[in-house]
Amino acid sequence: MALDALTRLAEERVDHRFKGLPPDAEGLTVGELAAQRRNLFTDGFTTPVLALSAERLEHNLRLMETYAARHGLAFAPHGKTSMAPQLFRRQIEHGAWGITLAVPHQVRVARAYGIQRVFLANELVDTAALKWVAGQLDADPGFRFLCYVDSVRGVELMDEALSGASRPVDVVVELAAGEGARTGVRTEAECAAVADAVAGARTLRLAGVAGYEGEVPRADPERVRSWLRRLVALAVDFDRAGRFAGLDEIVVSAGGSAWFDAVADVFAGIPELSSPVLKLLRSGAYVSHDDGHYRELTPFNRVPEEGALEPAFRLWTQVVSRPSPEQAFTNAGKRDAAYDLDLPFAQVVRRDGGERPADGISVTGLSDQHAWLRTDAEAGLEVGDWVGLGLSHPCTSFDKWVLIPVAEADGTVVDYIRTFF
Amino acid sequence: MALDALTRLAEERVDHRFKGLPPDAEGLTVGELAAQRRNLFTDGFTTPVLALSAERLEHNLRLMETYAARHGLAFAPHGKTSMAPQLFRRQIEHGAWGITLAVPHQVRVARAYGIQRVFLANELVDTAALKWVAGQLDADPGFRFLCYVDSVRGVELMDEALSGASRPVDVVVELAAGEGARTGVRTEAECAAVADAVAGARTLRLAGVAGYEGEVPRADPERVRSWLRRLVALAVDFDRAGRFAGLDEIVVSAGGSAWFDAVADVFAGIPELSSPVLKLLRSGAYVSHDDGHYRELTPFNRVPEEGALEPAFRLWTQVVSRPSPEQAFTNAGKRDAAYDLDLPFAQVVRRDGGERPADGISVTGLSDQHAWLRTDAEAGLEVGDWVGLGLSHPCTSFDKWVLIPVAEADGTVVDYIRTFF
Repeated sequence: MALDALTRLAEERVDHRFKGLPPDAEGLTVGELAAQRRNLFTDGFTTPVLALSAERLEHNLRLMETYAARHGLAFAPHGKTSMAPQLFRRQIEHGAWGITLAVPHQVRVARAYGIQRVFLANELVDTAALKWVAGQLDADPGFRFLCYVDSVRGVELMDEALSGASRPVDVVVELAAGEGARTGVRTEAECAAVADAVAGARTLRLAGVAGYEGEVPRADPERVRSWLRRLVALAVDFDRAGRFAGLDEIVVSAGGSAWFDAVADVFAGIPELSSPVLKLLRSGAYVSHDDGHYRELTPFNRVPEEGALEPAFRLWTQVVSRPSPEQAFTNAGKRDAAYDLDLPFAQVVRRDGGERPADGISVTGLSDQHAWLRTDAEAGLEVGDWVGLGLSHPCTSFDKWVLIPVAEADGTVVDYIRTFF
Repeated sequence: MALDALTRLAEERVDHRFKGLPPDAEGLTVGELAAQRRNLFTDGFTTPVLALSAERLEHNLRLMETYAARHGLAFAPHGKTSMAPQLFRRQIEHGAWGITLAVPHQVRVARAYGIQRVFLANELVDTAALKWVAGQLDADPGFRFLCYVDSVRGVELMDEALSGASRPVDVVVELAAGEGARTGVRTEAECAAVADAVAGARTLRLAGVAGYEGEVPRADPERVRSWLRRLVALAVDFDRAGRFAGLDEIVVSAGGSAWFDAVADVFAGIPELSSPVLKLLRSGAYVSHDDGHYRELTPFNRVPEEGALEPAFRLWTQVVSRPSPEQAFTNAGKRDAAYDLDLPFAQVVRRDGGERPADGISVTGLSDQHAWLRTDAEAGLEVGDWVGLGLSHPCTSFDKWVLIPVAEADGTVVDYIRTFF
């Protein structure tokens, strides 16, 4: 890891770039502010402010490390979720093989912070980005990079853009999750044609197969397992056809945040191939988990004996208006909270140092900079109260905050997580 | 203006923080990159990349300057839209009185770039933020700051937080746009009670009245005008009651991006008060305009003789997958495009330097990092093609980009706009 780059993050100056931080911390470095161990509720933080729970974050990192190890899976957590190099480092310290990413810009961020193994779970046909990848591979023999291919034309465009590169780029054929699903080759016959094209491209090397079971149409445990078995069968067929000859390892990858139990089950049955198989799981949302979408979908609901993720985000907002007994407005909106899968959930109310459940309070809408709250008679909400909101969808929560305080249960802020979106 | 702070923006290094920029520009300053006048399509920019049209941006800035002047309105464009100090400066160069903002963090950004007049169109009861505002007022006699009040409790919290400040904070009573509308006092009697509370608070000074007609329930031209007349009547009543005694000017403010024609009409009829009236319009979305929501809602549709705004954003994405004749996927998703009011609109396709209309292509969904495109037989779309998308809602477009290339019609990038969200 490029520890010096991470160290430089702690040397950034606290200023107007970072919303929610105490105005009187202006001019301190992030490291100096962290060393002050300020309290989120009493030491000058301004609302709205998103906080990560230190304990829950660590719990989630450990749980997925254990889960992957127990099931013999290599783990490349999807970094698009947080885009936070400090979390990438902690994920790798917790046993991750590398980091999954979605677009070349994200790979640039990872490389700037010394990530040595990147799985780009997407097609890549951008000439400028491919030339940059080739430059990274040339400059650093320790850099391992893989990406998807799903069309003959895509392979041709890659080969053209990479012309002259000294190391071939490793690619995996992406098998689509079904008819009408997202990217990926729809049939095994087309997969073979794409693999043939890769074999004919001097700048590319076929390293395995992959896909994303999260897009299986009308997904249920049987349909997801059925598709995963197709993916494994494709790897077996490719191997028998000699397509993986000469590889040190064969990559078979799947796994978002909703079906990793099915991935673990089906990948446990991958037969012996001509080289060792890197069974690569890519779940990303676990790092913060959430209070909505993934709380419902997490595989741990089906395998509670293996543990439970804990929602680590809480968005602190302040009641600025109470125009009627049925309505209240806090000062956080679409700029601050995820809203694509669910609205935020009112969880707790703080006043004068005390905290109580947000009974009788629900979020009914978000403007750009306001949350609309409906309040029952029991709500007892007043202008000035802080309302702690739970969020749904980690990816669209992280991306609204540039520097996120990490707070212990008593409110002590022990760290700050920098994101790059 | 703090021109040195703006100058420092041009001295920032181009690196992994800024998506879409050419990887081979790494290490240049933003100013050096701008001086190279690279072409958006041929000089190494990577997809997805959001671009602002240089000509349309200038057109929109001029049009609203002219509009406000013609109607005798002072103009404080809402800065929450862009959160771009360079655009704040251009708005002020184009005659704006100051900048409207929504939350204290945004005021910090504006102050860091020397904005001298800020209208905070929101209630503000955050103790740390109020102390910061008081510090800014104490340190700079030229700083003019106004914010909303809409409750007696809010006034009490402000007065408590501001205790010891040397200059009073100017506040305007916010009149709600109706029952069930957003923030603001619901009745004239309550407005008087809030104004009484302000009169009793040593740290506050009543400077006028304001509101936001965009939240009028079941808005139509007559309902909006009716509410605006209520707002004006409130100012007249307050003035007659002597509440504005001693002011140099009385502030009456309204005006988002959907009804500024009604604001112009009704504010033209404000009678003479005891001091000159600052009729303050706050529209913000005009700066980039859009291809969806505001294209439909803009008042210029009702007054075409006064001009027309031009949509200035185009999001360039690349086709990465074409799994079937009916489907294509580009590499931009929720991280890149506004999706809260409408999905993006496919506008043009570029291949080999040529550009054609995106006939037969529509955006049907966004994943975090992908756009889902439906294609008819006429689409003729291939992997590698660039698809230019129009967007809906400037506020949720700007906030997904940290540094935005400003390109002339032929693709020459002449500037880069830095945002702070």
